[in-house]
Amino acid sequence: MADERIVATYLIETPHPPMAAAEAMARQTTGTFTSVPGETVELQRRFQPRIERVTEREQVDRPTLPGSRPPAGASPVRYVRAEVVLSFPLDNVGTNLPVMLSMVRGNLFELPEVSGLRLADLELPEAFARAYPLPQFGVSGTRRLAGVQGRPLVGTIIKPNIGLSPAQTAELVEQLAGAGVDFIKDDEVQANGPHSPFDRRVAAVMRAVDAAAQRTGKRVMVAFNITDELDEMLRHHDTVLAAGGGCVMVSLNSVGFVGLSALRRRCKLPIHGHRNGWGMLNRCELLGVEFTAYQKLWRLVGIDQIHVNGLRNKFSESDESVVKSIKACLTPLFGGNQAMPVVGSGQWAGQADETYRRTGTTDLLVLAGGGIVGHPAGPAAGVRALQQAWQAAVEGVAMEDYARTHQELRQAIEKFSRASHMQGRSG
Amino acid sequence: MADERIVATYLIETPHPPMAAAEAMARQTTGTFTSVPGETVELQRRFQPRIERVTEREQVDRPTLPGSRPPAGASPVRYVRAEVVLSFPLDNVGTNLPVMLSMVRGNLFELPEVSGLRLADLELPEAFARAYPLPQFGVSGTRRLAGVQGRPLVGTIIKPNIGLSPAQTAELVEQLAGAGVDFIKDDEVQANGPHSPFDRRVAAVMRAVDAAAQRTGKRVMVAFNITDELDEMLRHHDTVLAAGGGCVMVSLNSVGFVGLSALRRRCKLPIHGHRNGWGMLNRCELLGVEFTAYQKLWRLVGIDQIHVNGLRNKFSESDESVVKSIKACLTPLFGGNQAMPVVGSGQWAGQADETYRRTGTTDLLVLAGGGIVGHPAGPAAGVRALQQAWQAAVEGVAMEDYARTHQELRQAIEKFSRASHMQGRSG
Repeated sequence: MADERIVATYLIETPHPPMAAAEAMARQTTGTFTSVPGETVELQRRFQPRIERVTEREQVDRPTLPGSRPPAGASPVRYVRAEVVLSFPLDNVGTNLPVMLSMVRGNLFELPEVSGLRLADLELPEAFARAYPLPQFGVSGTRRLAGVQGRPLVGTIIKPNIGLSPAQTAELVEQLAGAGVDFIKDDEVQANGPHSPFDRRVAAVMRAVDAAAQRTGKRVMVAFNITDELDEMLRHHDTVLAAGGGCVMVSLNSVGFVGLSALRRRCKLPIHGHRNGWGMLNRCELLGVEFTAYQKLWRLVGIDQIHVNGLRNKFSESDESVVKSIKACLTPLFGGNQAMPVVGSGQWAGQADETYRRTGTTDLLVLAGGGIVGHPAGPAAGVRALQQAWQAAVEGVAMEDYARTHQELRQAIEKFSRASHMQGRSG
Repeated sequence: MADERIVATYLIETPHPPMAAAEAMARQTTGTFTSVPGETVELQRRFQPRIERVTEREQVDRPTLPGSRPPAGASPVRYVRAEVVLSFPLDNVGTNLPVMLSMVRGNLFELPEVSGLRLADLELPEAFARAYPLPQFGVSGTRRLAGVQGRPLVGTIIKPNIGLSPAQTAELVEQLAGAGVDFIKDDEVQANGPHSPFDRRVAAVMRAVDAAAQRTGKRVMVAFNITDELDEMLRHHDTVLAAGGGCVMVSLNSVGFVGLSALRRRCKLPIHGHRNGWGMLNRCELLGVEFTAYQKLWRLVGIDQIHVNGLRNKFSESDESVVKSIKACLTPLFGGNQAMPVVGSGQWAGQADETYRRTGTTDLLVLAGGGIVGHPAGPAAGVRALQQAWQAAVEGVAMEDYARTHQELRQAIEKFSRASHMQGRSG
C-alpha cells in the first residue's frame, strides 16, 4: 500500500515556466514543508506530491482567466499551456474521497501562478475500489432490468412537468409506455413539489406502468427523481422499490458526493445520474473538472447511468466532447464498472449513424423528447424510427437506404431532417 | 405561499439581444411548455419563471466562453453583458434545496445563447428558513464558545500536517495554545489518514488543549477536520463532542449540500466551512456561482464559519472581492443567521487597518500561519501583534504610531512589511 499513488492530470495555462507552476501546484496541495522544526527531508520525500510529467503545449497572448501574476519584468507576457501530472501517496489521505478531492482540487484553482487550471483526469489506486461501492447495476444491470439487449435503450422525458398532477403524469406515462419506449424519466425540477407529491405520483405512475405492461407485455423502466435531502431520498427510494419501480434519478451536482454515496449504500435500484449544473465546472476549457475525471468520481460512489448530451445537441457542448464522454463512461474502472451513457438533447433517429460510427457502441440510453412525440405518425412510430436508425447503423446500411423499406424512419427523416436544417443544431 | 417567489440574479454575456437570452434562460429552467395537449396559457402563467429585469452593461468584442451561437448574419458579432433577474414560484419545487438548485442553475451554463453566465445572487422565501436549520452558532455563538468579544478571533493552522503523528500534532497545539491563539484548525488534507487516525489525534490534541488551559486559563477552540463519508463525519463529530472539543471543520465543495445538511441536523458543535475548490466555481468572472449566492446556500444548510480569503492574500482573489465576501457573510439572512467570515492567506498584523476600514467589523476569525509562528519574538508575540494592530484599527490610530508603544507590533512591522515588499502580494 505504501507504493500506491493517486495520479492527477491537469491542463494549465501559466505566465511562468510550466515547471515552476507545477512546483507551486505541488506545494499547494499538501501545505508548506519548509523551515519547520523537526521536519526532515525524508518526511518531505514520503508525503510530498511528485511531479511526474510536464508537457508544454501552445502559447497564447492573453490569459484565459484573471488573477494570475506574471514574473517580474516579463514583457510582453506569454501564457503557456501545459499538461501537468502530479502523483500523491495514497497514505496522505487514505481512501477518503472528499479529502482526496480537497487534495487534488483544493485551492489549486486560485493559484496566482496560473491563468487557467483544470483537473483533466484522475487515476485512483485499487484501495478506492475496496472502500467505495461502485455501480450496482451499470450497463449490464440496466439492460437486464429493462429487458433490452443488442441495441440502445430508447427513453423519453416527462415534459411539460411542472403543474402536471400525478394523474396527468400517469396518463402521459401510459401513452409513452404504450408507444414502446424502454425508459421514462422525470424532469430534473420535478421531484416532490406541492403540485405532484412524490408518493402520489409514484403510485399513479406505477399503476400506469403496470396497465401498459398488461397490454404490451413490456414493463417500462421509470426513473423517479428523488433529489432531496438525504432522509427524503432514502424514503423515496423505498417508496419506489416497494411500488415495483425500476430506477431512481438524482441531480448529482445539487446533491454532492457524500449525499449520493450515502444513498448508494442503501440503494437497491439503478441510479440515474443527472449532471445538470455540469456546465459550471466545464464551460470554460481551462477551469474546473473535465468529464473524464468527473464521471470516474461518480462511478466510484456508485451511479449506474450518467448524462453526456448527444451529437448535434441543443447546448454548447461540441460533438467531439460528447464522443469523448461516451467513451469515458464505458472505459473500465477497476476492471469494469461501466456507467451507461445517457445520450440526450435534440436527439432523433438522425444521429444514430454518426453516434455509432464515432463511438462503436450500442451501450447507450438514448433520450428523445420531440424526436418521439413529434413523429408525424405518433410516438410509437417515433420509437420505431429510432430503433430502425440504430439497426441500420449497426448493419452498416445508410439511413436513407434503410428508410426505403422502413416507413417510420422515412417519415422521421422527412420531418426532422428538414427541421434540423431550418434550426441549425437544434433539430 | 402561492405568491412567494425564488429570485435569482444572473450576470450573463450574450451575442443576442439580452432579453432574447433571458427568454431562453427562462424556458430552460422549467422545460418546454409549447404545443402540448392539455396545456393552457393559465398553467404557463402559474408555473413559468418571470423575467423581472434585464439591465444591459458593457459590450465586448470576444466571447468569454466558447460554445455560443451568434444570431444568423450578425457580423461583426458583439457580446453584451447584462444582469438578468428571474423569479420562480416557490410551489414549482417547494423548499427542496437541491431541486431548487437544479432549477436556478440547471443546464443554464450550457446554453448556446450565452457566452457567459454566472449565478450572482439568490433570494429565497421565508419558507426555506422553516425547512432548513441555518447556523446553530454563527458569529455570536462562536464568540461565546471561544470567549472572545470586541476583537477578531485570532487563529492559526496546523502546518505542516501530513506525516505528523497525533503526538506531534498535540505538541504543536500545546505550543500554539500557549501562545494565546483563540482558534486552531486542521489542514484540509488532514482528516483521518493512516498517519494520524482521527480518534487518536482528537484524544492527544484535547489533552494538549486541557493542559494549555490549565496553564493559561484560556481554552483554545480547535476545529477538527471531519470531512469524510456521512457515517464517518457523524461518528467523528461525536468523538469531538465527547472529548470536549469546540468545533468541527468540513470541506464544503468536497462534501456537497446534502451531506453537510445531514451532518448539521445532528451537529452540536460549530461547523467551520472550508471552501477549498471554490475557485473552480469562481475564477472565471462570467461562469459559476458568485460568493454572495454561494455563502447564502451554505448558511441555509447551517455552517457557522466560512472562508473568505483576506486582503493582499496569496491567491488570485482581489481585495475588492474579499471585502464584498466579508460583508455578504455578515448581511442578515432571514433576519440574522450571520456566518463568521474566516480571513486567511498571507495574513499578519499589516492588514488589520485596511480590513477594518473597508468592512467596519471585528466579527472576523483571522487565521495567520507565518504571521504568528514567524514573528521574531515567537508565536505569542505574533498573536499579540495581531491583537495590537486590530486595537489600533478600532481606535483609529495609525499602525506605525501604535507600534511606538507596542513592541510586538513594531517587530512584526519590521519583519513582515519588509518581506511583504520583497514578495509582492505574498507577504
